[in-house]
Amino acid sequence: MYSTDFTKRLLTYRLSLTHLKKVGLNDVYSHLLAGETSHSASLIRKDLSRLQVKGKRRGGYDIDTILQAINAYFGNKERDRIILAGMGNIGKAIIQNKDFEKHNIQIIASFDLNPAIQRKKFSIPVFPMEKCREIVVNYKIDVAILAVPAFSAQSVCDQLIQCGIRGILNFAPVNLKVPDNVYVSNVRLVDELQQVIYHTKQKRKHGEYS
Amino acid sequence: MYSTDFTKRLLTYRLSLTHLKKVGLNDVYSHLLAGETSHSASLIRKDLSRLQVKGKRRGGYDIDTILQAINAYFGNKERDRIILAGMGNIGKAIIQNKDFEKHNIQIIASFDLNPAIQRKKFSIPVFPMEKCREIVVNYKIDVAILAVPAFSAQSVCDQLIQCGIRGILNFAPVNLKVPDNVYVSNVRLVDELQQVIYHTKQKRKHGEYS
Repeated sequence: MYSTDFTKRLLTYRLSLTHLKKVGLNDVYSHLLAGETSHSASLIRKDLSRLQVKGKRRGGYDIDTILQAINAYFGNKERDRIILAGMGNIGKAIIQNKDFEKHNIQIIASFDLNPAIQRKKFSIPVFPMEKCREIVVNYKIDVAILAVPAFSAQSVCDQLIQCGIRGILNFAPVNLKVPDNVYVSNVRLVDELQQVIYHTKQKRKHGEYS
Repeated sequence: MYSTDFTKRLLTYRLSLTHLKKVGLNDVYSHLLAGETSHSASLIRKDLSRLQVKGKRRGGYDIDTILQAINAYFGNKERDRIILAGMGNIGKAIIQNKDFEKHNIQIIASFDLNPAIQRKKFSIPVFPMEKCREIVVNYKIDVAILAVPAFSAQSVCDQLIQCGIRGILNFAPVNLKVPDNVYVSNVRLVDELQQVIYHTKQKRKHGEYS
């Protein structure tokens, strides 16, 4: 299994290549992709060779070939179906985000403790947590987005795992405890922002400003 | 300047230590913190020694001392003031997130092209982009959250930089082009989710499930 960094870079390449195709390019040189993605050209060539994408005779790569290889790597020819736990502000922003659908990810249901939320009309059904196992089992769901408040994050996480969930994207500012067979990735908005603030201050201190 | 990974770990430690304090602990051993954060005890000891936090005579560390050292590292005794560009679903979720305030980050204003949004009542003022320079200059703002749609992300990013912004937390699925003196960090929700899906599938393939 390749490292997380490798899969992250592939997603960055895909983003840039999709953009380059849109503006009319069919081929790309590694140094052009380097300029777009801020990874080095040699690392990009190494990554493409890992994907078994070969360069063209005259140099450069066929963009479609790279995109197909990246999509095949992620195995997302079929639609991936996931669930969402928590219909607060972040949860609502997530179900209204059309980028997931574009990438063949479908949020088939969401769960919330608040019955008032469940009665409101959203683009996906909202159930109480008790319905979770039924849906996870019937639809063979592996992955959940966890967007509940910090105080209930661990307990909802435990419930999701009991229902059969094995991958969690966690938005709660909590270090979740999970068994070894569960994969967790954290989106820490406050941490991300503090890092930007910190590095921007450092740059200012070191006179890197024009 | 330390690496991004080091600062990321510090934020993870802080999260766990704040939690441990809340449940009543005053001291912590590196291996306990290791269990909470999934970093190794030896790496944690190294990080603490970089922060010049010393262990106690009988072993373990004083939690308050570590927390103070981490907060001093980020230099956030004062409130950090930032702005937000884009009042779509993500932007709205961000201004309603109380975790920022808790960590002394204040979003003082937001900007949106849509005058209807500007007329609605939010907890912070919403201005048209033309007001951006005035606010950035008057309040000496360095950092912005960019939460606009992909198609306008680069142009709004350029405007922010022209107004004086030097650090950007970007939510748009776009590889922004910025000058060297600007620090950008990306929150890629679709990418994060695809990574979770990928790694969860891999685990299933390799029979790491009970």
